[in-house]
Amino acid sequence: MSDSDPADSDLGDSDLGDLELPDAYRDLRRDLHRHPEPAWCEFYTTSRLIHELEQREIDDLLFGPEIHTADARRNVPDESTLSEWRERAREAGASDAVLDTIGNGFTGAVAVVERGDGPTVALRVDIDALPITEADSDDHHPEAAGFRSTNEGYMHACGHDAHATIGLGVLDRVLDSDFAGTFKLVFQPAEETISGAKPIAESGVLDDVDYFLAPHIGLDHPSGEVVAGIDEFLAVRQFETTFEGESAHAGARPETGDNAVQAMAAAVQNLYGIPRNSAGGTRVNAGRVGGGTASNIVPGDAFIEGEVRGETTELMEYMWDRAESVLAGAATMHDCAVETELLGDAPSAHSDAALVDVVDRVARRTTGVDTVVEHDSLGGSEDATYLMQRVQEHGGLAAYVGVGTDHPGGHHTPTFDVEERDIAVGIDLLAGVVEALTDTAGLS
Amino acid sequence: MSDSDPADSDLGDSDLGDLELPDAYRDLRRDLHRHPEPAWCEFYTTSRLIHELEQREIDDLLFGPEIHTADARRNVPDESTLSEWRERAREAGASDAVLDTIGNGFTGAVAVVERGDGPTVALRVDIDALPITEADSDDHHPEAAGFRSTNEGYMHACGHDAHATIGLGVLDRVLDSDFAGTFKLVFQPAEETISGAKPIAESGVLDDVDYFLAPHIGLDHPSGEVVAGIDEFLAVRQFETTFEGESAHAGARPETGDNAVQAMAAAVQNLYGIPRNSAGGTRVNAGRVGGGTASNIVPGDAFIEGEVRGETTELMEYMWDRAESVLAGAATMHDCAVETELLGDAPSAHSDAALVDVVDRVARRTTGVDTVVEHDSLGGSEDATYLMQRVQEHGGLAAYVGVGTDHPGGHHTPTFDVEERDIAVGIDLLAGVVEALTDTAGLS
Amino acid sequence: MSDSDPADSDLGDSDLGDLELPDAYRDLRRDLHRHPEPAWCEFYTTSRLIHELEQREIDDLLFGPEIHTADARRNVPDESTLSEWRERAREAGASDAVLDTIGNGFTGAVAVVERGDGPTVALRVDIDALPITEADSDDHHPEAAGFRSTNEGYMHACGHDAHATIGLGVLDRVLDSDFAGTFKLVFQPAEETISGAKPIAESGVLDDVDYFLAPHIGLDHPSGEVVAGIDEFLAVRQFETTFEGESAHAGARPETGDNAVQAMAAAVQNLYGIPRNSAGGTRVNAGRVGGGTASNIVPGDAFIEGEVRGETTELMEYMWDRAESVLAGAATMHDCAVETELLGDAPSAHSDAALVDVVDRVARRTTGVDTVVEHDSLGGSEDATYLMQRVQEHGGLAAYVGVGTDHPGGHHTPTFDVEERDIAVGIDLLAGVVEALTDTAGLS
Amino acid sequence: MSDSDPADSDLGDSDLGDLELPDAYRDLRRDLHRHPEPAWCEFYTTSRLIHELEQREIDDLLFGPEIHTADARRNVPDESTLSEWRERAREAGASDAVLDTIGNGFTGAVAVVERGDGPTVALRVDIDALPITEADSDDHHPEAAGFRSTNEGYMHACGHDAHATIGLGVLDRVLDSDFAGTFKLVFQPAEETISGAKPIAESGVLDDVDYFLAPHIGLDHPSGEVVAGIDEFLAVRQFETTFEGESAHAGARPETGDNAVQAMAAAVQNLYGIPRNSAGGTRVNAGRVGGGTASNIVPGDAFIEGEVRGETTELMEYMWDRAESVLAGAATMHDCAVETELLGDAPSAHSDAALVDVVDRVARRTTGVDTVVEHDSLGGSEDATYLMQRVQEHGGLAAYVGVGTDHPGGHHTPTFDVEERDIAVGIDLLAGVVEALTDTAGLS
Repeated sequence: MSDSDPADSDLGDSDLGDLELPDAYRDLRRDLHRHPEPAWCEFYTTSRLIHELEQREIDDLLFGPEIHTADARRNVPDESTLSEWRERAREAGASDAVLDTIGNGFTGAVAVVERGDGPTVALRVDIDALPITEADSDDHHPEAAGFRSTNEGYMHACGHDAHATIGLGVLDRVLDSDFAGTFKLVFQPAEETISGAKPIAESGVLDDVDYFLAPHIGLDHPSGEVVAGIDEFLAVRQFETTFEGESAHAGARPETGDNAVQAMAAAVQNLYGIPRNSAGGTRVNAGRVGGGTASNIVPGDAFIEGEVRGETTELMEYMWDRAESVLAGAATMHDCAVETELLGDAPSAHSDAALVDVVDRVARRTTGVDTVVEHDSLGGSEDATYLMQRVQEHGGLAAYVGVGTDHPGGHHTPTFDVEERDIAVGIDLLAGVVEALTDTAGLS
Repeated sequence: MSDSDPADSDLGDSDLGDLELPDAYRDLRRDLHRHPEPAWCEFYTTSRLIHELEQREIDDLLFGPEIHTADARRNVPDESTLSEWRERAREAGASDAVLDTIGNGFTGAVAVVERGDGPTVALRVDIDALPITEADSDDHHPEAAGFRSTNEGYMHACGHDAHATIGLGVLDRVLDSDFAGTFKLVFQPAEETISGAKPIAESGVLDDVDYFLAPHIGLDHPSGEVVAGIDEFLAVRQFETTFEGESAHAGARPETGDNAVQAMAAAVQNLYGIPRNSAGGTRVNAGRVGGGTASNIVPGDAFIEGEVRGETTELMEYMWDRAESVLAGAATMHDCAVETELLGDAPSAHSDAALVDVVDRVARRTTGVDTVVEHDSLGGSEDATYLMQRVQEHGGLAAYVGVGTDHPGGHHTPTFDVEERDIAVGIDLLAGVVEALTDTAGLS
Repeated sequence: MSDSDPADSDLGDSDLGDLELPDAYRDLRRDLHRHPEPAWCEFYTTSRLIHELEQREIDDLLFGPEIHTADARRNVPDESTLSEWRERAREAGASDAVLDTIGNGFTGAVAVVERGDGPTVALRVDIDALPITEADSDDHHPEAAGFRSTNEGYMHACGHDAHATIGLGVLDRVLDSDFAGTFKLVFQPAEETISGAKPIAESGVLDDVDYFLAPHIGLDHPSGEVVAGIDEFLAVRQFETTFEGESAHAGARPETGDNAVQAMAAAVQNLYGIPRNSAGGTRVNAGRVGGGTASNIVPGDAFIEGEVRGETTELMEYMWDRAESVLAGAATMHDCAVETELLGDAPSAHSDAALVDVVDRVARRTTGVDTVVEHDSLGGSEDATYLMQRVQEHGGLAAYVGVGTDHPGGHHTPTFDVEERDIAVGIDLLAGVVEALTDTAGLS
Repeated sequence: MSDSDPADSDLGDSDLGDLELPDAYRDLRRDLHRHPEPAWCEFYTTSRLIHELEQREIDDLLFGPEIHTADARRNVPDESTLSEWRERAREAGASDAVLDTIGNGFTGAVAVVERGDGPTVALRVDIDALPITEADSDDHHPEAAGFRSTNEGYMHACGHDAHATIGLGVLDRVLDSDFAGTFKLVFQPAEETISGAKPIAESGVLDDVDYFLAPHIGLDHPSGEVVAGIDEFLAVRQFETTFEGESAHAGARPETGDNAVQAMAAAVQNLYGIPRNSAGGTRVNAGRVGGGTASNIVPGDAFIEGEVRGETTELMEYMWDRAESVLAGAATMHDCAVETELLGDAPSAHSDAALVDVVDRVARRTTGVDTVVEHDSLGGSEDATYLMQRVQEHGGLAAYVGVGTDHPGGHHTPTFDVEERDIAVGIDLLAGVVEALTDTAGLS
């Protein structure tokens, strides 16, 4: 199916005791790394992972529209972009049948393993890449080792290739173990645009989950360090606002224009001026703006691509309410029409102490882990929070877990990379947690 | 009636040939100068002028509500201010009967002289003073000669005391002449706040006028110079906008405030940014602004006292339409309520060439005039334009005439003053024009 | 000395066990309440308190320039304001000798009691009032009981009259007790303008203090509640910035103006837009702004009275650095000069846990206290932090203590008032803490 | 040389009396229309015109660096753009030798004809095209007649193809006439970016000119109408300003960013707020702006591509001075670096009445002209003003002449086109003027 022929993979049989990542997982990780795909276009990636799942003895395999509430998807690219990535995936060896099902931006997959009575445990790993051009210098390991991105301009610069590999590794361990209960593995698309989790959450596929785990590699924690529970996700909402005025000749008839750039500039000035909130930290950013066509034309159009955040969902909503007033008022000021499209968003969330305790306890006995940090804060945003919140609303517990790795470049930079043996640590840790959860008394 | 007892005035009998201003006119001018009163509070001034008119053989004397469309008045001070100036006028000798009629801000007067068949000619002079503290140095003539303002903080700093005197002088000359037709003398209040002309215009008292003349002394033209026709009045609209938000403790609860100062600042930034207009000059000014109470309180209120102008009334309206959008949008931006009160306004206007020609011709033969400028532009605004426009709409002609004088300080400064003999020149010039207009063939 | 003749006071002998505030303290509190004085003008207040101190057996009494580093004083009113309040104080009975020493804005006093070996304990109470007009309705107790403000427009609306009384009450209790060590009572001026603590701190008068206590009444805590340690003071800096441009006629010569209101508006827009800080909460406020003179004059001057705050002193400094850039840039934009005067400021601070523990323990056994809150955050600012920090820098411990009271109106509102019996609770509590501190083992 | 083989051209022999444009001129115009080239890249165009000139009996032919002061050139594209257009020209048939001389952005040419004693008369025509995609509908004549642009995305949408043709036509007429004096024909590049005239002016090539003529076709004047003298060019300066701050993660570390988009927005707000000028009309435009990279990154870079204008050069300079303050202040506000590159500019200019009179007189006797407008204003900008001003500074006279044509679409729109017979009118008119100027008594 893929150009690296994973059919001969022997992933299920590996022994992680020696802390080396077995070849099959390493090959998988590198194949994914070689084929980074942006949000909602993870066609090759999804097809490759489904191919892996189909070779395993799982009880259910869900993908396509059945795992997404279609209306809840945001930021889905236009048809021409989807089509371009579908063709690229097809050429790289993706399955036609899978592409038929997922091809309209319904990427990702859910695998279900049922092993009798016991808790339902879910593991979520994200699979999308970023629009960043990967480093091609000799000291960048993927380049040196021959698995640098082949989708020029795109890159797994946040470790989701490692996440997906960890997911499959844990599944293999569960299959091999005497785990009692139900295990769900979620390959989530479109995390980078904070759009993939919400439609999965709303589909209900996780509503029966008792314990939910979402791992993240790196995050400035070194190899050998585990964070048992990460908290303080900033709730976030991203948006694109367009101002439409009327262009005009700036010398001959300036009065006939309705200046969209003036509206945009007024909006920028006042968005950043939204009052601070005594209830906690907030953020606002007009991260990308533009407008107009030439120096001698009164600009008739402009846009702001921005976001608001808050330490709680309520704080983010406060920012959003204020932002809406600012955007509307700025348009009114300059007789422009204004339209705002919501892109991704994510609530804030917290890791449940009881579940974090289990992770902590398991981490302390996991080979390769030398430091366990009980708690850390994220500082940024991540839409796993939609899934965590959904599980918590239905009575389950959730934890966001950090798996350290020495990464040479920062997240979202061209030289980001992970130590592959830390993928092995991640598999070991999370498989250990799943097993520990079999005995629900563990949380009493 | 007044503290300077003008009852013994012999104004009607003077000979202006020698270019000295007869004593009676000089005394009147100085009495008015001594009692400067702000717009709509010209109680002493109006009473004094009515007293003069009552001593003359005029055919009609109108004052109080009959010369004003009440609803068209703007900027009328509140009752306590009116009351204060009424009492001050009463103490200075104003007539109780007159005060009863004009006391609610219906100042000014119209005198009518009917002398058989012939054109109707109107002369408009304005009578209000300014909130400026008059200079008290020895080289300021009114101080040296003992007629400095007795209403501390107020001053005739624009020559309206001279205008009123010119008006009465011309009336006397008409009474003495063989003028055939109707002559109307209008003492207009509230020019400085551009509010007094509109209610008089709308009252219709000038609708039958064939020739309308409005003189202004000074305007940076020296003694001996006359401007036959002044043009290019900027149409103007003045307004006061208040933003009402919600104040809050800036440290403890900034998020509960709706910041009126932010709204005001956004409005200021964008008012000045209203696009230029290729059809002609425009202006905008946020001349006085303020808001808030203390450094640690989120300001819940703010205001802008401003104006827009245009070389034509249409251009001013263009500015106003844009300004309304800006003010509304600024309020929306910061969740504030906004209210705008229109203060004074005035259209643009032009002097009719045919009438200007008459002024020009008469000026050239007037003693004391050594230079006649055919045309000049005002640069500022003046609400005589409401009266000019009204007359023109009804088929009459109008001219705004400049009478030069060496004024030591600029208009609207504490050292402004006029040469009194130029008042005599003004009387001579305008009386000459009125007489010349008897023969309507003069304009053919 | 004062109009209420406190000479017959029997303050030292009272028994607070029954939770009634002894008459002498009640009379003192009401006398102070009747004579509210603004920051640096607490002439009557200081004189009255010195009079009280002089009647007691204290070892040292400091006041005037000796307790202030003169250069560190900010916000001292101009001489005419000082003079006005001095005369008012003199008329109310203040001592001429005291006024001679404190009359140039060196208000406040420090009393020292030396009782042999033992720790040095300091109690700081603030004494200034606010420019607020006190309520005069019958249900406002000071009005009903006849001790409403006699300095119309000023009011003890933050309980500093109660604080001063608590201070004297604790002194009396220390004098009566077997306290071993040194006790310093500081009557601090100018807290409301966050300017009075810094010059006292820098004078060094507290450098030998081991334990520093600063009580505050009310703060939305009800009668019977004590807060053992208050934290999270926002560091604050207040400033006044003036922009000086060039005024001009807005119609005739707008191009010759340099518009200070545009500069101010640009500054306001961008001050509020200073980036949030991930290290903690920040604040900025342009609390009072203004500029210009009339709608038709390009405004040549404008001002901002504002403040920045931060959860730490570093965060406040971050805000201040950014604010300085904004103010400078705004002036540059509109070719204006800019000048910024620093008004008051205060660092952030924390209460030391060991000292808070003592307060907590004493509070639990104090009559009249039914709830002890271990910790609360202030949310606002207060310059006691200068003193706390100074003591801490010299190795001492500090605590800011809340004494609840049912106050009908909020702090800084016209109906604020305190329950007088809670003054008795405050005396009892703090005297108990001072006594407990004699035995330094209490903190081991 | 070109793909339409103009070698067989018989341009010199045509008779324009019947108002049809001779085939050879029509073919030239269409060939130029088919090969529109942007400013400084008029490689094919220049080569084609030089080819034409080389076939005529002219006395001097100048091109390349000799007609440009190299440093005065602005907006010259980068080498890769130049190279792309050079190759395109080469493929279309441009001469290698010519390309060698003009290929680094030294386009345009000057032809000189010397015919003994007499005045020096110069005719300037511009030759560049615009980055506009030409209409391809059947009712667009160039499409229907087969000479639509072959450089997709570029178009002669302002009639410069007609201008160049008029230039050659006039040259032919001068060669055939008994004109006495010197005739200079200037093919000017880069008018659309207002950058081509200045380097030619500064080269001195026109310093000996007595009479300078610059025709423009269209300008909303219909076929049969001539404007003898166009005035009121707005002086203009175009610029590109870049703000460089520091990008940062908008969620995790907003405080470490220096927000270039905030600086840009503040600049936009305040550029439009530059005060109006009572001396005449001004303009300012931030025509194209942008900044930042993604919604969650504090934007570290931003730009403004803008312009200022004025009815006089002084007014434009006034705007520019103010703009520089605004740009500097905006950068300061947000701790950004700022850099401004001047792009093109042009002074204002006026047509000399004496020369306009000659045009007027000749136009009235020119076949095909039915209306002569003495004077019109341009409203926009045009860098012929640099040449007009240079000639006037050296004692010559200049006139900018309008040649009407019914153009279906507006200037700078995809459907712009000219009536080819009006090119004949233009040739006839301007040749007539040149001949009339032989007799310098015509201007006495």
